[in-house]
Amino acid sequence: MRLSRETGVPLFEQLYEFIKAEIISGHFSSNERLPSKRKLAADLQCSRNTVEAAYNQLVDEGYLISRAKSGYYVAELDGVLSIDRARQAEPGEKGRAPAHAVDFSYQGVDFDHFPFSTWRKLTKDVIDEYDRDLLRTGDPQGYPKLRASIARYLHHSRGVNCLPEQIVISSGTELLLQLLIQLLDRHSVYAIENPGYERLPMIFRSNRVEYRAVSLDEDGVRVDEVERSGANVLCVTPSHQFPTGLIMPVSRRLQLLNWANDRPGRYIIEDDYDSEFRYSGKPIPSLQGLDQHGRVIYMGAFSKSLSPALRISYMVLPMELLEGYRERLSFCICPVPTIEQKTLQRFMDEGHFERHLNRMRNLYRQKRETIVSAIRELLPGAMIDGTTAGLHLVLRVGNGMSETELVERAAARGAKVYGMSRYRSGPVADEAEGTLILGFATLRIDEIYDAVRLLSTAWAA
Amino acid sequence: MRLSRETGVPLFEQLYEFIKAEIISGHFSSNERLPSKRKLAADLQCSRNTVEAAYNQLVDEGYLISRAKSGYYVAELDGVLSIDRARQAEPGEKGRAPAHAVDFSYQGVDFDHFPFSTWRKLTKDVIDEYDRDLLRTGDPQGYPKLRASIARYLHHSRGVNCLPEQIVISSGTELLLQLLIQLLDRHSVYAIENPGYERLPMIFRSNRVEYRAVSLDEDGVRVDEVERSGANVLCVTPSHQFPTGLIMPVSRRLQLLNWANDRPGRYIIEDDYDSEFRYSGKPIPSLQGLDQHGRVIYMGAFSKSLSPALRISYMVLPMELLEGYRERLSFCICPVPTIEQKTLQRFMDEGHFERHLNRMRNLYRQKRETIVSAIRELLPGAMIDGTTAGLHLVLRVGNGMSETELVERAAARGAKVYGMSRYRSGPVADEAEGTLILGFATLRIDEIYDAVRLLSTAWAA
Repeated sequence: MRLSRETGVPLFEQLYEFIKAEIISGHFSSNERLPSKRKLAADLQCSRNTVEAAYNQLVDEGYLISRAKSGYYVAELDGVLSIDRARQAEPGEKGRAPAHAVDFSYQGVDFDHFPFSTWRKLTKDVIDEYDRDLLRTGDPQGYPKLRASIARYLHHSRGVNCLPEQIVISSGTELLLQLLIQLLDRHSVYAIENPGYERLPMIFRSNRVEYRAVSLDEDGVRVDEVERSGANVLCVTPSHQFPTGLIMPVSRRLQLLNWANDRPGRYIIEDDYDSEFRYSGKPIPSLQGLDQHGRVIYMGAFSKSLSPALRISYMVLPMELLEGYRERLSFCICPVPTIEQKTLQRFMDEGHFERHLNRMRNLYRQKRETIVSAIRELLPGAMIDGTTAGLHLVLRVGNGMSETELVERAAARGAKVYGMSRYRSGPVADEAEGTLILGFATLRIDEIYDAVRLLSTAWAA
Repeated sequence: MRLSRETGVPLFEQLYEFIKAEIISGHFSSNERLPSKRKLAADLQCSRNTVEAAYNQLVDEGYLISRAKSGYYVAELDGVLSIDRARQAEPGEKGRAPAHAVDFSYQGVDFDHFPFSTWRKLTKDVIDEYDRDLLRTGDPQGYPKLRASIARYLHHSRGVNCLPEQIVISSGTELLLQLLIQLLDRHSVYAIENPGYERLPMIFRSNRVEYRAVSLDEDGVRVDEVERSGANVLCVTPSHQFPTGLIMPVSRRLQLLNWANDRPGRYIIEDDYDSEFRYSGKPIPSLQGLDQHGRVIYMGAFSKSLSPALRISYMVLPMELLEGYRERLSFCICPVPTIEQKTLQRFMDEGHFERHLNRMRNLYRQKRETIVSAIRELLPGAMIDGTTAGLHLVLRVGNGMSETELVERAAARGAKVYGMSRYRSGPVADEAEGTLILGFATLRIDEIYDAVRLLSTAWAA
């Protein structure tokens, strides 16, 4: 064995790796005595500290045993784990490579303005060896200080009234809904918006729960249909109906609250999925903020405002449900890692979240204005539905092509667009007047015109 | 307004905060023109770059509008969010303060040897502005490279045979079980070990699923009882039965596999929760490794080997179940944040995990040896059950006191111990011969003797 001073690998580590390999390969037998530190240091022309550091590491990991006043011996290797570190073949990351040059996805966020350096710095500070919270199971409902920050944020930005105790942090709408399915009466029937968020029917089916799709009019979900459906739990997106982009007026909100108050056991689940992004007009108070009788379960997430890869969402339980939650569901431990919860709490408390939101709202407003101008100019027959909010708009192309044709022709030119029909419940005929959901969050401002031009070419008769 | 060069706050930030506050408080009205950069710089005796940086930040966040060749104007503040940043009152972190001086918890990990600096460095590297994975929804089953690392680890350490495609990453046993409940036949009946992991009955009850408790003999779960129970899915902990500490011999493992092969639709869920920590003897292959017919669903976690606060667990699905999983459950997005998945993947691939495990095994072995010696010396009538594995042992105190009495007397002296009865299903009489679960992972070696002495004093007649 020779130690090299040129590889950049510390000497003690070279020695450690060498001896470890010799032991694993059986060149040393168990109980064999190793050379003394002094002798080995002389042989290798290194310091005794180097040998000592390598030996100690090997003792720590169970390869050697140190016997007082006698020296170092090779241990029985019974339990010692050795994982072959052969460079792993790149696993095929299916579906990751962008199959399309342009993707009008409504799910992503802007790729260029995430505050990476702040997040990195805060994370680094949070990973603190003296913080025992990082080594034990945390609060089942989520880190209390983060819940306090979220409560304060919701109060200021959405008029939501709640105490931190009412908040449950989790990592996705599916998981929050699964908790609610377990919490609410097992014979509950859920009403969902039609068209609506396409995962809801999957979640309810998969959890073997009954649901009914309820249609919309120009003010949002139809109260008479909700009533007729026999449902007792209603899932709605009043701030920016998904996918139509409607904002529910206060009158309809009050009607829904009346419906909920009408019978015991009725609840409204308000999913405020992209409420941060509203570009004009005064905000309308959340349903939760209007609710006087604890009928609204409010849900939010950081997927749109920060990143979907962070996997942080939350709900606000009415006081009436909180006790049952604690009794029956406190075995469900908050799935968000403590490091990430603490990082987000500091991000919010130090004002970074407020600044990021204002910046992103401004940026997304510009993206929306750009795509609207581009559509008016390049697709003159098309109609834009939906209000000036959120990260997508609804486009009725109006050139006589069906949805399927629009999607396929766009794909042939390398542009991915999303048809409205996948958000409708029940059997849907291919509509003569194709309607699309066009997301703009992931597109750069300077590529929006070209992207719309691609659609215009694709859809030219 | 005066800029101070002594506060340590950058000048542009002072200016930004000042103007923002003025705008929010209404001292500037909307559309009001701000002083030119040159003029303001002269007034404040700072550089024009400072003013420009502050103005640009305010434009970015939507407080100002910049008009070409005209200057900066106060924007309409419609949508701009301002969160009151009043220092939050410390929320009461209930139950967090250690009520006991000594806690023989079986759930925690060692507090002093987590590789914080490595984890910090890797996390810092992973938070990379050029990595778009951090800004989009990841693979529903978990980051593919991490799944490959876990597959390789399981192969080397546990004899588990699987492809990365078979792995589903999630953040806790509860969540994995919830996925399985949705995946397996809805009329499935689950058999659980009695005594066993106390959360299983809660999970099954909460998900409205039938289960049966099956008792153990000296080799583990009784096959005749499993057969009689009518269950088709069996949950077991063969490597280190929780809580009794039994290791299931190969003969019983083969009997269980025969049971599973006997009828279609039968499965075994093998929870290998602390299999990393085995201190003597040759490891017995996992049930999954013995299984020839895809009947075993293997589960593991990083809660014991790294930290429960990381919230990372996984399961290995048999090929037969994989297709159904992808068809019906791919809407369930992996709840672990991408940053954390990538950090763990690098931690494993760069060899840190192997080294940490070997080190911790060595450390926990020493803790176990110390607590065993202390018990023999200080509680001479007590019997230790369970094999030399895991992070807890089972203690039959044998001094005639009941479990309740033992727990209460220990508590009175500031020591928290856990009675066996909470892990038993069905009505349990307070046993005349008190049996306890004694965890030792969170205790430092040098405090173990004193901790056991506390028990010995508490339990003296």
